[in-house]
Amino acid sequence: MGGDQGPAVTVHGVAEAARSLPGSCFLLHGDEAALKLELAKVAGLADRVEIRHTDKVVAMDEKPATAMRRGKGSSMWNAVEAVKSGEAMAAISCGNTGALMAISKLILRMCVEVDRPPLVVSWPGSRGYTTMLDAGANIDCSAQQLVEFAIMGEAFHRAAHGVARPTVGLLNVGSEDMKGHEEVRLAHTILKSGQFDLDYRGFVEGDDLSQNTVDVAVIDGFTGNIMLKAAEGTARYVGAELRAALTSSLITKVGALIARKGLLAFREKLNPPPAAPLLGLNGVVVKSHGGATAHHFADAIRMAADLARSDFAAEVERNMTRLTAAVGDHGLPADEEPS
Amino acid sequence: MGGDQGPAVTVHGVAEAARSLPGSCFLLHGDEAALKLELAKVAGLADRVEIRHTDKVVAMDEKPATAMRRGKGSSMWNAVEAVKSGEAMAAISCGNTGALMAISKLILRMCVEVDRPPLVVSWPGSRGYTTMLDAGANIDCSAQQLVEFAIMGEAFHRAAHGVARPTVGLLNVGSEDMKGHEEVRLAHTILKSGQFDLDYRGFVEGDDLSQNTVDVAVIDGFTGNIMLKAAEGTARYVGAELRAALTSSLITKVGALIARKGLLAFREKLNPPPAAPLLGLNGVVVKSHGGATAHHFADAIRMAADLARSDFAAEVERNMTRLTAAVGDHGLPADEEPS
Repeated sequence: MGGDQGPAVTVHGVAEAARSLPGSCFLLHGDEAALKLELAKVAGLADRVEIRHTDKVVAMDEKPATAMRRGKGSSMWNAVEAVKSGEAMAAISCGNTGALMAISKLILRMCVEVDRPPLVVSWPGSRGYTTMLDAGANIDCSAQQLVEFAIMGEAFHRAAHGVARPTVGLLNVGSEDMKGHEEVRLAHTILKSGQFDLDYRGFVEGDDLSQNTVDVAVIDGFTGNIMLKAAEGTARYVGAELRAALTSSLITKVGALIARKGLLAFREKLNPPPAAPLLGLNGVVVKSHGGATAHHFADAIRMAADLARSDFAAEVERNMTRLTAAVGDHGLPADEEPS
Repeated sequence: MGGDQGPAVTVHGVAEAARSLPGSCFLLHGDEAALKLELAKVAGLADRVEIRHTDKVVAMDEKPATAMRRGKGSSMWNAVEAVKSGEAMAAISCGNTGALMAISKLILRMCVEVDRPPLVVSWPGSRGYTTMLDAGANIDCSAQQLVEFAIMGEAFHRAAHGVARPTVGLLNVGSEDMKGHEEVRLAHTILKSGQFDLDYRGFVEGDDLSQNTVDVAVIDGFTGNIMLKAAEGTARYVGAELRAALTSSLITKVGALIARKGLLAFREKLNPPPAAPLLGLNGVVVKSHGGATAHHFADAIRMAADLARSDFAAEVERNMTRLTAAVGDHGLPADEEPS
């Protein structure tokens, strides 16, 4: 049923994704009449789409706890349930993020120690995107959880960006072994032990993100959230100042008008992709932005398809098994139950 | 003896500052011959300057520990020593930051619980600057230390920016009371108790920095460092992309040339002031950037003069006394010795 703009976005997004994913079929969960109305506008999609009617919708402003209690039978719930039952290979939503996380966790269960799926961000930089996680779902992160982020982020980056062997770094205040607090140093020790099947490059710093020094950058959710918002704020501020500077006089306005094509390309480049996976679940769920366009939603579907067709789950499981072994070696509480 | 560019910068910086600070006198510590050579180029300064000769200099790449052990008698050491003895009201340096911190701490001692003076950053935004601390000196910060940063940052912002009653916020992942980890929540409880003479506004988020929502934003040094570098990296990336976009074709180049004045004003606006105080010491020490120009160094001198002439020390002491009282109320370890 879509996010802020409803099923128009999702149905047209499905139409775009269907063209680039031959053989794929789609279950559309939601109000049959509304969905049929949109489907009628798109040629040749009807035979690849099945509508699963429900008139129950999780509102964009619904609290996650409420969505968990009362969300059963909603379009979001049914989409995730279809992944659980094996009928669908992935669920894609541009609805309420907190509700999607809560419902996904309830239905699919976490396969890792973290309490909530880490927020994954594609950080734009001079050489592409760096996958950054956690951007805010888990505030206090143990060393073990940071290693889990590294494992999941690496497998995700390979699946989503087609990089055969993504490089991984731990965000810290410097590159020497003794830098940072205890958890980040312990995670560093575990990761550099060489027990994992991943290309760990050690500590990286905040400015390595926009230089894409590594493909995957790992951080606790507290720092990740504040850092991401500070950088987004900076980018917005820079953009606003630039606009002010270029409209400060008739002369600069003329210049900006002439350079318009370059300035538009510049703005386009700064927009991060609006799709993000919910990692750590027993199943593929991808979140598209609430204000996503049909094109954005198609991108989210392609990301979900990439993940579902990849060896993501097996790769994560292999490294998680190694982590369980490593945990004993480094004196971590190995007998703790995953929450 | 200056930073990367030697005494030319410092002497000409003193000349500029002397014009805006009537009645002020300056002790110049360093090589007498080199300093005299520069002084001869500036008219009317000689009678307000006294040279304190030393041929010993702390190198820009010297380790802080080495500077502490072998720095005695160097120009940096003598400048800080003059503050201790009461001969100078403040010390200003654009030399080695780590060495200046270590030497200042050794000679002047800390007046607060934190181990090292917090790094203070002026974060540029749409309505001026937000004073952000700690940007990386103290990695693990207790609730008490976060409150100390708030106290020092508030008094500094008033002295340096002439704001009668600066507003203070704690950086967190959201604005509700239950957000964030234990230390930040406890610091919030202490600050909002109303026991302090400061205008505490509660939790703020990363994007509040470039919106200047509060005058002073407090954070632990781990998050502060990574956040600052991520934002600096983003600003550099945005600048590079803008340059690339504006030179991508002859047309955009012509536009950029016409809009040049606006673009230069834009670039100027993004540069943060290159002076920062070392707070928490028993005495005023201001650090100017290693690559500072004479104008930057003059700014650092003016900041030092503002701090020295203000009630900074008394204001901090008053609130610190209240903190000691509050610490008991909130079950913090009150008997711990300041390190």
